[in-house]
Amino acid sequence: MTLENSYRVEAERLRAFVQRIFERLDVPPKDARTAADVLIQADLRGVDSHGVARLQWYTTGLQNGSMEARPRIHIVHETLSTATIHGGDGLGQVVGTWTMQRCIEKAQNVGAGFAAVRNSNHFGIAGYYAMMTLPHDMIGISLTNSRPHVVPTFGRRTLLGTNPIAVAVPAGKERPFVLDMATSAIPLGKVEIASRKEVPLQSGLAVDSQGRPTTNPDDMLEGGGLLPLGGTRESGGHKGYGLAAVVDILSGVLSGPAFGAAVLFPGTGEPARVGHFFGAMRVDAFRPVEEFKADVDKMIRDLKESPKAEGQDRIYIHGEIEYETEMERRKNGIPLHPKVVATIQEIGQSLGVEFDV
Amino acid sequence: MTLENSYRVEAERLRAFVQRIFERLDVPPKDARTAADVLIQADLRGVDSHGVARLQWYTTGLQNGSMEARPRIHIVHETLSTATIHGGDGLGQVVGTWTMQRCIEKAQNVGAGFAAVRNSNHFGIAGYYAMMTLPHDMIGISLTNSRPHVVPTFGRRTLLGTNPIAVAVPAGKERPFVLDMATSAIPLGKVEIASRKEVPLQSGLAVDSQGRPTTNPDDMLEGGGLLPLGGTRESGGHKGYGLAAVVDILSGVLSGPAFGAAVLFPGTGEPARVGHFFGAMRVDAFRPVEEFKADVDKMIRDLKESPKAEGQDRIYIHGEIEYETEMERRKNGIPLHPKVVATIQEIGQSLGVEFDV
Repeated sequence: MTLENSYRVEAERLRAFVQRIFERLDVPPKDARTAADVLIQADLRGVDSHGVARLQWYTTGLQNGSMEARPRIHIVHETLSTATIHGGDGLGQVVGTWTMQRCIEKAQNVGAGFAAVRNSNHFGIAGYYAMMTLPHDMIGISLTNSRPHVVPTFGRRTLLGTNPIAVAVPAGKERPFVLDMATSAIPLGKVEIASRKEVPLQSGLAVDSQGRPTTNPDDMLEGGGLLPLGGTRESGGHKGYGLAAVVDILSGVLSGPAFGAAVLFPGTGEPARVGHFFGAMRVDAFRPVEEFKADVDKMIRDLKESPKAEGQDRIYIHGEIEYETEMERRKNGIPLHPKVVATIQEIGQSLGVEFDV
Repeated sequence: MTLENSYRVEAERLRAFVQRIFERLDVPPKDARTAADVLIQADLRGVDSHGVARLQWYTTGLQNGSMEARPRIHIVHETLSTATIHGGDGLGQVVGTWTMQRCIEKAQNVGAGFAAVRNSNHFGIAGYYAMMTLPHDMIGISLTNSRPHVVPTFGRRTLLGTNPIAVAVPAGKERPFVLDMATSAIPLGKVEIASRKEVPLQSGLAVDSQGRPTTNPDDMLEGGGLLPLGGTRESGGHKGYGLAAVVDILSGVLSGPAFGAAVLFPGTGEPARVGHFFGAMRVDAFRPVEEFKADVDKMIRDLKESPKAEGQDRIYIHGEIEYETEMERRKNGIPLHPKVVATIQEIGQSLGVEFDV
């Protein structure tokens, strides 16, 4: 960090700092590196809500014992193409990468590998794990449940997480297709920002404590909930509700331990019992890789080069903005909000780790 | 059909009539029965847009040679857990059930089975194939691409189908969870109905030929497009766009032949080159079946029994309305619109098949 460019920090130095934090909390160096890498990758890709801004969650969890620094991650049950993994209450990033590696191995052996994971924790950006399959010319899938913020259609109690779906698909000359989306209409963070700025939300995104549609962010934050993708029933919200339920069934119910309201906020002192679901499918288990990639390229170009809506000059492919953000931030550094800098500096101080980014 | 109850027809008699139609068009009896069953199942479940109302598509396709009555369905490539299927331009219902049966066998052998299908046709309701896995205590997945009606976010050319996602999950005492959703904000049929009734659409569902949001159904029908689930960018439409793209990648690009604008309307005279993607995962490849089902039951009850939004008295689980509709229609008959009755009667007459329902 220089005076000239106060809040731009170099990715590799930030990663090393975060790794030292985790190591200081007894996380083995390799795992500490993994956990740091997932957080920094979020910051590089512009998903600032899932980067080092959340470091406190993990340090608190490791300190109060709800997250295990040296978890006993193990296979509860497996077949040639599936596995159920117990995460040992480890960091979600460590459990997630460990499990996706198993899925990739299964896909190498029999074409496809899928795993449901129990007893894990918040794992950061879902896309990270889906993208692990790309160097292997596989299609990657990554899902997770999370503490409930979303109401079912016609309900007013939050019983579903923002339960993201990530899918990564290798391309040829084009960049990979990487969808990484919450199944809620908007993320909680956007409501918090609207509240701070005292601006209304668009309609159809949130409800108040009585389940009534609201545009007042504080109505949502004070006992209300997010609507699922699609908004109200009239605009298709029951579909987002269905997708969120599927994510919870595969991540929480299929893995065993916890779903719906039983999934907790990170770092409360109790194990959060987060569940994930991962999948890897070898492209060449279906079709020659080069043919497939050429067609993904064609599909991407067909979409990008098609006529634009009035007032628009660009059609985006999923993951494209994130790749461009990463290139810019690798070059110019990651911009961090002063509050985030203050928080992670403080974490460093409290653990005796110098903040030297 | 009796005079008293002019437009209620008995499901089994309707199925037998449709089967005879297919048989008259040289479809082997077993396949004719399958194709009829998928159509009648749609009518029973209340998905009237995908039932016998669409019989004309298939009879025209079989007559003009764009659909094959006796297709050479075959495995192009396979691994222990995956397969790529060539549908031989057969009826989508025949290709779909054939392929899902292969997925179920693979899941029985190695835990999970997935198949991408090329050179098929419109297969009716996606949920039918996902539900085939339920008696085997498996989770079923069924996707298909379709002729383009949906614009990408910020675009104005329709390059994506309404590309549905269906997921079926077995329950214990409760009814199975069956999600069957288009990835567009609304189906085309709803726009057509609004146009006939001369009522406006809700905002955020469609665009006109310049890509401008519109509530006028005719603007959409005359060169415009449907918006993806989520509507405009502000309300999350880029997510529905991403899901539609994933469905096309798995159904069209992974299987090989056709995606985006290359998928044709049914029955044009050219093979429509529809692609599908199916998956089956054995529940006991992850977790004991009885434990899983008990937790699915709990999840369903947690959702259904949770407090309702103001003005609502019921929270629905996906598939619930369809199961109730099926029970009612099995008892009282399937209500058919007079125009639908006239059309299928006419088809029967032209083929010398008596309409005796």
